[in-house]
Amino acid sequence: MTTRITCVCPGKPIRRARAEAVQALAAAEFPHVALNFAEQCFEEQGHFAGDDAQRLDAFLAAANDPDIDAVWFAMGGYGAGRIAAPAMAGLTQAAREKTYLGYSDAGTLLAALYRAGIGKPVHGPLAGDIRREGGEDAVRRVLRYLSGETVPLEAGLDERPVAAFNLMTLAMLCGTELMPDLTGHVVLVEEVAEHLYAVDRLFFHITQHLRGVAGLRLGRISDVPENDRDFGMTEVQIAQYWCERTGIPYLGRADIGHDAANAIVPFGVARSAAGA
Amino acid sequence: MTTRITCVCPGKPIRRARAEAVQALAAAEFPHVALNFAEQCFEEQGHFAGDDAQRLDAFLAAANDPDIDAVWFAMGGYGAGRIAAPAMAGLTQAAREKTYLGYSDAGTLLAALYRAGIGKPVHGPLAGDIRREGGEDAVRRVLRYLSGETVPLEAGLDERPVAAFNLMTLAMLCGTELMPDLTGHVVLVEEVAEHLYAVDRLFFHITQHLRGVAGLRLGRISDVPENDRDFGMTEVQIAQYWCERTGIPYLGRADIGHDAANAIVPFGVARSAAGA
Repeated sequence: MTTRITCVCPGKPIRRARAEAVQALAAAEFPHVALNFAEQCFEEQGHFAGDDAQRLDAFLAAANDPDIDAVWFAMGGYGAGRIAAPAMAGLTQAAREKTYLGYSDAGTLLAALYRAGIGKPVHGPLAGDIRREGGEDAVRRVLRYLSGETVPLEAGLDERPVAAFNLMTLAMLCGTELMPDLTGHVVLVEEVAEHLYAVDRLFFHITQHLRGVAGLRLGRISDVPENDRDFGMTEVQIAQYWCERTGIPYLGRADIGHDAANAIVPFGVARSAAGA
Repeated sequence: MTTRITCVCPGKPIRRARAEAVQALAAAEFPHVALNFAEQCFEEQGHFAGDDAQRLDAFLAAANDPDIDAVWFAMGGYGAGRIAAPAMAGLTQAAREKTYLGYSDAGTLLAALYRAGIGKPVHGPLAGDIRREGGEDAVRRVLRYLSGETVPLEAGLDERPVAAFNLMTLAMLCGTELMPDLTGHVVLVEEVAEHLYAVDRLFFHITQHLRGVAGLRLGRISDVPENDRDFGMTEVQIAQYWCERTGIPYLGRADIGHDAANAIVPFGVARSAAGA
């Protein structure tokens, strides 16, 4: 049985050569996968892969197509938040029977889908991650997962529901019309290219909003820019500090981050290691 | 009558030479001002002007001292959010009869004070702004204001209550235990050194939280880092877009920002142009 996957870009565009590399890998190694990139992925409108209407239309076309099994977010960047609310309003029955996979800025759409109870939102590598060291393996992991093979997921998942986010993305979601109820959830967070003082500030914000979660796990905090002074605490100390202040259990590290090793984390209760 | 002002640093430390320059200016031009820098202002602990306990103690000592008329935040940076909640819990009656002046990260303490109804929180230049071009005039404006002279405030304030914030600081406050009720307020925001995509993302977040305000006014968005692509919208278009989406009146520009021209904006209803 063929697994039909369509890539869309709710934020930044993907370079065509990278999309072609992902398609070549899929064609060579995944004969049962039909992988398509919406033409919208290559549009450019300022920061974005096409204007809001183009990105919204491409997402809805893929999500509402009954012949497609999974929507794979090809790039993050920024832009999902501009289309997420109208996107939820435009989804039809066919959208409910799909897997949606990506992370970083695309986590905004995963959050909105999870809140709305639509489809199966999954944190995992973007198609555009093929550019990273080890990126081909990240792409293989996603294609295996989406075609129903058993692949390793984030370790240590148990009967408790889970959700995974970029820290800034989650902070911007807190308290908004897109934010799902994460009561009782184990919440995994990762960040890239933010100063540790900004990470500390984000932890203040999210721990204020996440009272009632089962706990927090800390993914990788990578590419921290050099500052004029050392922050004086590690990212683990930051996470532990804010968790302790707000009574949220700190549950240790998580294997997620802006890198090729970024683990697959299906939102909700882990039922199996197989995808769509 | 002497106006007694104490400077504290809830975030980053101030360089001693800059503090001395502010004191020299005050001594030369403001014979009726007694200006003191808490020794804590010069402490260094990682990112911060001393550890959390030192910064908290210095703030409380100044705020609770009945012989002091105003607490002037000498530097921003980051750190007020770590001490604001315990600070509010430690304030006594003497703290209620003071003016608290600063902006940027110090806006976190202004917000918490405003929420608690304690003292007179005022957005305005930091002592450390003396380092900026035109900084001496910014310092003079604050010293005039705090010693009861009539000085120009933000233009266009009317009978509606007002509050002014750094955009990121406000975003991190939204929905937390430090956030004041801004219903019916004209809210002024400014930002520095953030990409326009980040400004757009912050506007998504704050407009979701600020439904019910009287309107938003946009200060300066300065030192925007160069990005690999143009965002495609100006900061005015960003503010107008999110205001329109959320039904918040966009009320035009404001004369605030990370610069020496940064206007003085007393929180609440403007009653007079004179300070402490």
